Order: sequence, then C-alpha cells, then structure tokens
Amino acid sequence: MRKKPEILDTRVVARSRLFRIEAVNLRFSNGVEVEFERLRGSGSVGAVIVVPMLDPETVLLIREYGVGLERYELGLPKGRVEPGEDMLEAANRELMEEAGYGARRLTKLPALSLAPGYLGHRTQVILAEDLYPQRMVGDEPEPIEVVELPLSRFEDMVMENEDLTEGRSIAAIYLALSHMHRRGRR
Amino acid sequence: MRKKPEILDTRVVARSRLFRIEAVNLRFSNGVEVEFERLRGSGSVGAVIVVPMLDPETVLLIREYGVGLERYELGLPKGRVEPGEDMLEAANRELMEEAGYGARRLTKLPALSLAPGYLGHRTQVILAEDLYPQRMVGDEPEPIEVVELPLSRFEDMVMENEDLTEGRSIAAIYLALSHMHRRGRR
Repeated sequence: MRKKPEILDTRVVARSRLFRIEAVNLRFSNGVEVEFERLRGSGSVGAVIVVPMLDPETVLLIREYGVGLERYELGLPKGRVEPGEDMLEAANRELMEEAGYGARRLTKLPALSLAPGYLGHRTQVILAEDLYPQRMVGDEPEPIEVVELPLSRFEDMVMENEDLTEGRSIAAIYLALSHMHRRGRR
Repeated sequence: MRKKPEILDTRVVARSRLFRIEAVNLRFSNGVEVEFERLRGSGSVGAVIVVPMLDPETVLLIREYGVGLERYELGLPKGRVEPGEDMLEAANRELMEEAGYGARRLTKLPALSLAPGYLGHRTQVILAEDLYPQRMVGDEPEPIEVVELPLSRFEDMVMENEDLTEGRSIAAIYLALSHMHRRGRR
C-alpha cells in the first residue's frame, strides 16, 4: 500500500448551523501539493442505516422528502447514533421512530462510506429481523409512509430508477441479501 | 403520492471555493414548517460512475486517496460531465484518465443519488465493456493504481469492509451484475 499524503494544513473556510467546509493542503508522496475541500458535519459518534426484514421475503422501506433532490424518495430508515447509545440501540430506535417497528434480532454488517473524496461519513449497516410493531415519536415533520417491498420486486424497482435511487440504501439491501444467503448456506 | 412541501425561502448561508450551503424553509402539506440545510456543488451538468468490465468475470477498480476519510479507498472511475460532452463521452474519458482504458461498448444504467436529505447529486451508472488500452492524462495528483477484481471475490471484499466501502460504487457494481445477468437470460 502506498504511503498516505501528508496533511500540511487544515482550516475552516465556511461554516453554517450544521456544516463546516474545510480546505486541506496535502503533499502526496511524489511531492505534488494540492488543496482539496471537504465537508464536516456536526461531530457525531456515528450513523446507522437499517435493513428491516418484515419476513424473509419482504423488506420495509420508508418514503421521505429529501430537500437535496426536492422530492420524495424511498430508502431505508437511518440516523445518527446519539450519545450513550451503541450502534444496535440507535438502529432499533430509528426503526421504531421511522417505521413503527422494533427488532428482536439486530446484526452488524459492513459500514458504507458516502463520498470519500470530500465527506467523512461512514454509516453502519444493521440488519433487523424478528420485527414487532412498536412506535416511538421522532422529530419528523410529518408521518412517514412505510412501504413493504417484496424482495422479488427489489431489482426491478432499482432498474426502473424512479424513487429508489439512493446508492447507500441499494448497497445496504444487497449486503443484507448476501449475508442472509451466506448464513443460509452454513 | 403525497403533495410536496412548499419551499418558502432559500438563501446561501456559507460559501467556499467549491461549495455553497443553503438554508431552505419548507412548509409540509400538514402545515408544519421547518428549516433544513443542503449542500450545493459548483453547477455541473451531471456526473458519471463507470463499471469497467475487463472481461465478463473481472471488474476494474481504482485506488485513490480520499481526503474525506483520510485514506486510500478502492472504487470505480467517476467524474463530472464536462460542457459539450454527453454522459457516455464523459464516462469514456474518465475511464481513459483514471484507469487507462477506452470502451467500445457503453451502456447507460440507472442514476444513483447520494444523500437526498442534503445533497442534490445524481450520478449516472455507465457499464463499460469491450475495453482496449488507451490512456488520457487527467488532473490527478499522482498515478492511480488500477486493480483487477474477479467478480467471484467482489462480495467477500465488500464483507471484509476494509478498502471497498463506498456505497455508490458497491451499488453500481451490483446494478451492472444484475443488468448483465438479465441480458444473458433474454
């Protein structure tokens, strides 16, 4: 593995309520120096994205408005880990708040990064099984629509490219399928 | 489908060389008003991520330093569509610049979003086949390492969760596999 670039200098060049933008000066191991910009969020101990299996053939999705794309999008429940929580507790809370279910069985799968070139985010994928109805009130501005998606429809829905487009949610569902498939073979 | 929230007000609250952060005031259809923040990049006509198949069993990945995560990461070639290019031309140029190959066959697959809650990005997935060696010089600070990954190793590598973690790249490879599988069945 190649030697990492040396970080010569990091400074905040813009800041808002939720974000700060840093300029970073780097020297690569070949001597080339460049300045990159990266986005930092409010310091969180982590984030989780939950793949809730209503039964072995059905995944639960939620439909939420995303102001980045200015439209409603289907995706998985997700959110930040709050102080004092571990990843599994955060996943179960987000699942209760956003989809109205708790899970008796929670399994840590890989963590996914978002855009390593300018974001530091990593989101732990958590598979949630053995669900039971349980709602917790979150901070959502409106009730969230929950959609039961048969796995047999999942790839068609992604290929239609209409409202299930988020790379992280799609990757997380594939990871869960792969994990369940491998577990079944053992 | 539910009525979209009304955008009451949008204003730039922070700005850097590459990014601007906007605060957006929304009124949801139930009357609840909230303020969100979102990140805007420099106005680009689009972005592409390329799944280059060296042969039907081998995908090409590149290893690049990402200052967001401060480490080298494996992922797919990608980049912005330049003025005057279409998506397929941009994909072929990025493939030549970052991996040293051109493609005789380019196929548009779905577009992936990144984080609809606060980013407007959509990246078109392009499957690249019938490759031939062809290098173009890009603006990379150091030569990019190209890795030939047998598809039989792909899921193991994702599950190891070491240097192939980017959700968008993982989703794009799964989409390409699904597309090639469906094409083979027809």
